[in-house]
Amino acid sequence: MIVILKQNPDKSQLNNLVSWLNGKGIDVHPTVGSTQTILGLVGDTTHLDIDLISALDIVEAVRRVQEPYKNANRKFHPDDTVIKVGDAIIGGGNLTLIAGPCSVESEEQIVDIAKKVKESGATILRGGAFKPRTSPYSFQGMRGEGLRLLSLAKKLTGLPIVTEIMDISQLELFDDVDIIQVGARNMQNFELLKELGKANKPILLKRGLSSTYEELLMSAEYIMAGGNEQVILCERGIRTFETYTRNTLDISSIPVLKQLSHLPVVIDPSHSAGRADLVPALSCAAVAAGADGLIIEVHNDPAHALCDGPQSIRPEAFDKLAKKLWKVSEITKLGGND
Amino acid sequence: MIVILKQNPDKSQLNNLVSWLNGKGIDVHPTVGSTQTILGLVGDTTHLDIDLISALDIVEAVRRVQEPYKNANRKFHPDDTVIKVGDAIIGGGNLTLIAGPCSVESEEQIVDIAKKVKESGATILRGGAFKPRTSPYSFQGMRGEGLRLLSLAKKLTGLPIVTEIMDISQLELFDDVDIIQVGARNMQNFELLKELGKANKPILLKRGLSSTYEELLMSAEYIMAGGNEQVILCERGIRTFETYTRNTLDISSIPVLKQLSHLPVVIDPSHSAGRADLVPALSCAAVAAGADGLIIEVHNDPAHALCDGPQSIRPEAFDKLAKKLWKVSEITKLGGND
Amino acid sequence: MIVILKQNPDKSQLNNLVSWLNGKGIDVHPTVGSTQTILGLVGDTTHLDIDLISALDIVEAVRRVQEPYKNANRKFHPDDTVIKVGDAIIGGGNLTLIAGPCSVESEEQIVDIAKKVKESGATILRGGAFKPRTSPYSFQGMRGEGLRLLSLAKKLTGLPIVTEIMDISQLELFDDVDIIQVGARNMQNFELLKELGKANKPILLKRGLSSTYEELLMSAEYIMAGGNEQVILCERGIRTFETYTRNTLDISSIPVLKQLSHLPVVIDPSHSAGRADLVPALSCAAVAAGADGLIIEVHNDPAHALCDGPQSIRPEAFDKLAKKLWKVSEITKLGGND
Amino acid sequence: MIVILKQNPDKSQLNNLVSWLNGKGIDVHPTVGSTQTILGLVGDTTHLDIDLISALDIVEAVRRVQEPYKNANRKFHPDDTVIKVGDAIIGGGNLTLIAGPCSVESEEQIVDIAKKVKESGATILRGGAFKPRTSPYSFQGMRGEGLRLLSLAKKLTGLPIVTEIMDISQLELFDDVDIIQVGARNMQNFELLKELGKANKPILLKRGLSSTYEELLMSAEYIMAGGNEQVILCERGIRTFETYTRNTLDISSIPVLKQLSHLPVVIDPSHSAGRADLVPALSCAAVAAGADGLIIEVHNDPAHALCDGPQSIRPEAFDKLAKKLWKVSEITKLGGND
Repeated sequence: MIVILKQNPDKSQLNNLVSWLNGKGIDVHPTVGSTQTILGLVGDTTHLDIDLISALDIVEAVRRVQEPYKNANRKFHPDDTVIKVGDAIIGGGNLTLIAGPCSVESEEQIVDIAKKVKESGATILRGGAFKPRTSPYSFQGMRGEGLRLLSLAKKLTGLPIVTEIMDISQLELFDDVDIIQVGARNMQNFELLKELGKANKPILLKRGLSSTYEELLMSAEYIMAGGNEQVILCERGIRTFETYTRNTLDISSIPVLKQLSHLPVVIDPSHSAGRADLVPALSCAAVAAGADGLIIEVHNDPAHALCDGPQSIRPEAFDKLAKKLWKVSEITKLGGND
Repeated sequence: MIVILKQNPDKSQLNNLVSWLNGKGIDVHPTVGSTQTILGLVGDTTHLDIDLISALDIVEAVRRVQEPYKNANRKFHPDDTVIKVGDAIIGGGNLTLIAGPCSVESEEQIVDIAKKVKESGATILRGGAFKPRTSPYSFQGMRGEGLRLLSLAKKLTGLPIVTEIMDISQLELFDDVDIIQVGARNMQNFELLKELGKANKPILLKRGLSSTYEELLMSAEYIMAGGNEQVILCERGIRTFETYTRNTLDISSIPVLKQLSHLPVVIDPSHSAGRADLVPALSCAAVAAGADGLIIEVHNDPAHALCDGPQSIRPEAFDKLAKKLWKVSEITKLGGND
Repeated sequence: MIVILKQNPDKSQLNNLVSWLNGKGIDVHPTVGSTQTILGLVGDTTHLDIDLISALDIVEAVRRVQEPYKNANRKFHPDDTVIKVGDAIIGGGNLTLIAGPCSVESEEQIVDIAKKVKESGATILRGGAFKPRTSPYSFQGMRGEGLRLLSLAKKLTGLPIVTEIMDISQLELFDDVDIIQVGARNMQNFELLKELGKANKPILLKRGLSSTYEELLMSAEYIMAGGNEQVILCERGIRTFETYTRNTLDISSIPVLKQLSHLPVVIDPSHSAGRADLVPALSCAAVAAGADGLIIEVHNDPAHALCDGPQSIRPEAFDKLAKKLWKVSEITKLGGND
Repeated sequence: MIVILKQNPDKSQLNNLVSWLNGKGIDVHPTVGSTQTILGLVGDTTHLDIDLISALDIVEAVRRVQEPYKNANRKFHPDDTVIKVGDAIIGGGNLTLIAGPCSVESEEQIVDIAKKVKESGATILRGGAFKPRTSPYSFQGMRGEGLRLLSLAKKLTGLPIVTEIMDISQLELFDDVDIIQVGARNMQNFELLKELGKANKPILLKRGLSSTYEELLMSAEYIMAGGNEQVILCERGIRTFETYTRNTLDISSIPVLKQLSHLPVVIDPSHSAGRADLVPALSCAAVAAGADGLIIEVHNDPAHALCDGPQSIRPEAFDKLAKKLWKVSEITKLGGND
């Protein structure tokens, strides 16, 4: 950490700061210039509150050099984290396909889709029971009943299931859920993250619409600091000035997050684009860029159902896409992206 | 609502759509061009799910014409909502100053600051007990004990208090809190919003870092749809490409939100800038633009305490600023901004 | 185009508007609701100035339905535009590799790199002579002398060259340049675009840092309206809140621009990331998403030269990458992305 | 400047770097930690190319501590720059109103508006002759004839004029123009900036839609490095995710730019909002935040003319607004914003 001092800092305040830092086990190396003095802080600064130091009268600015996360940091855990649920292996050079409808709507719908995506090679079933909707007047999901139908589809197909939690109070209903999803809007719901840090199952953590890589990794750190090391990072599009697509898929997040962290990175091309016709191109791109998996919305009858977003593809399109993805994966996994 | 059809739409699908809309009490007026057909939808489209229609094969795009919120909409409630807590009146042409520390730290601290900001004209006390922090290793607030100290400060000064809730499970501790704050990161924590819709006290709803005006008003709508009409909107800076300031205060939100909605609009200049030295200029600007109130971080000893952010101003600075704000308010409230 | 009227519009103003529109060959279809009236405009609205209509007292909002560009629009030109320079074919299902240094620095440097990238399969040589630099104190390029060295490299290798123009006055020096590049910062330098509309050679038009797809296509339209139909669109990263990478590569731009327009789409992974280590992953992703080409910075000695940005890869890395890109291309071009 | 080295840097490369820096008059102070080494660079780093150093194999990151601009920097020029044209004084605690139509349309129009805004207290006349338009099919301004009519209005009213230049080749027509405006889209047209550095008249430099404060000041530096120190900075709204307003006025730019630089700061509320009804609130806010001036679009007949954007206010509205602005200015200028 670098502390840039204001011109002519008060000496006693400076001494106080240095003593305080030394007391926390940090060595302080000053660089004195003609117009500016810089303090180089050496030691474990992870637990140092940057705001505390910035608030001091003698300080102009503070810049981090080390990442503020430790459990999620590849520097301290060079090997990939590999997560296993059912037959699926997420991370470590594998390509995992997660597929299913946006919302669970009926037994027939979820079971039918589950069977079809399994045939196409998906190894995890997705489906929303609790749905975060911008409008209070929109369909809010089947909730508890939706979870029951997911369990049924799991029993019939053997596919492990991933579904979203929206509040701590719902956790007791998630016993049969294999991977708990935290949605983009809850990425910084810190009380929820702390609670999931005590859970004994993987967490799929979606990046917030305008969250930085560091913030995403700090939210993973919340879960990991509680003892749960099974976190899957998920990029699902960020908010930019461009409104033609619902969000903008940040494809660079894949190589960047995999450099910074040992956690698996999964891409959601459906929410990124908000349009079914872009899903194939974005999926291929994500695999080519080194993603560990994809989570894709698949619906058996989007046109007549009047109950699903315009971003779902049909099972046949998913099947065709999956075949292409395995081929891309073979090429780009060979030798890694270097 | 406008539905733009693809070229040569399937007739039976089109008939299905029109019947379905008619069944919901919507009149459909087609405009047939040589290369494009447009449907004009007339009626109450608030409860119509835009995604449902977009998903149809025959539809190219859907554009809203009416706002999707009703309770928060000024068109249906032309008069300003005015909220009273203690001696404070928020909305309806008043200027309300809310002030206090970022975090409650001790009895001495909160009581001392409360007394000072009251003397300067603040009519509501703010102070954080539950603190949302990006890092799990940062101070998370005094929590229950913080709420107890706020109550004490309220008793000693008579100032009503506003403080942030982070999870539904904390609600039972908020009995003595006068205004419950929902933080920016929880603006779309819909389960929490629904719960607060049943509360019998005002909610200060902060705009998310990258939430649009419409999304903010839809979150207000969640609370109001539950029966709680006392919502205060709060702009606290948005996330943009400019990183010199922590966030970018969106000053236009004031006249825009007051046009779109009857709810009071309060500005948080402290979090917007993240820097104490910008607070006076931004506060004056907010009042000049017509804000109903300000929520300002004031700390009695930011430099030595090592426990508060760089955005707090001292009580003397707050006192000086308040005097200026009343004067600006006198001029700009006269005749309104038209 | 849709015109949404304010409540109770003045009738004579409304009649004036309708007559004025009819005079321009536009049919007007009104949809009268209880609280709102909407006008559907049918006809060629490309030349209609949206601001003119928005300014009227009786108008609340105007929404475009048709795209405001015609020459660049795939609806009017369904077939891909294919551009040929030297042995390179850009567009129409081909993958074109453009490579070379950020700046031309010396005869030895540019010739050496040109030979190497040609051997690896690049069919066009890039190299900056006029360099747009944020700081007036940074190296501004070799300018005229740089163009001379590019010509020399072209003569020795047979590779056609692409290089950036920064001002109309430089155009007379570009006789031997095969493709003229317009940089991101000049994407809306309309006087320059008009002049290039008269040129008889292809233009590589880079998307501005915060330009929408529509704005990019409107800038292409400026060139095409002048008679020059050989425009290559280039995505080079957009500006977002995320500052870990220099810019954010908008991978969705590839399928979107190819849907909206018949012009070829080329990706610049070097400027998108600003980091050499991300170039391979982003390049693979771009090809997988259907890009017609890549423009990649390659330098023969980035480390010792102290004269090039951190985003250049070495010739050996380019060679290895190119081999991978052909393979990805084979898979993803097969049957298209549908 | 701080250079953060990668783990275990190559010693000979490190020695090369240190020698190279010493050769440029820079002292290097290393801070050696157990896992990381940091170099503190002391001396004038303004002319140091940050990209050169970042490109080195041994370097992980480089962070600037000093600003990269010198002529525009308040640290080196503590006193406000004050610019005089005609009766107008821009900077140094004054409030200057610049007003006039978006485009010059006719002699009658520009002369009439000039007279009216002068009566209301404007001391500089604005009006567009060369118009940057997104579409090639939109009105491009009266160009040379527009400049002639502006001169006429200047002669008849005594008001100095400000108008936009779009290309170097137009400069010869600007002899009678008092302040040359560089539009947002040309803020990084570096060839144009260099040319204006030789001009002997003030330049009103508009901030680009997505340019940082530092980039704006670097563009001012381009002009000042050429010898022209009369630069007026102009904030006109930035591009964000919020599209309800055309752009988002960055009100914080006023106190920030005035801290960083000695140059005057003028606000354009008309382009910021893109809507006439927001102009009064944003103007009051800008003055309250300490702006040195405002540039406001005023049109005598927006509704019937069908020739101007929806952001112009009428002369009567401008007159009323101006009266309010003087009053706000009196309060907020007193004692400054501290």
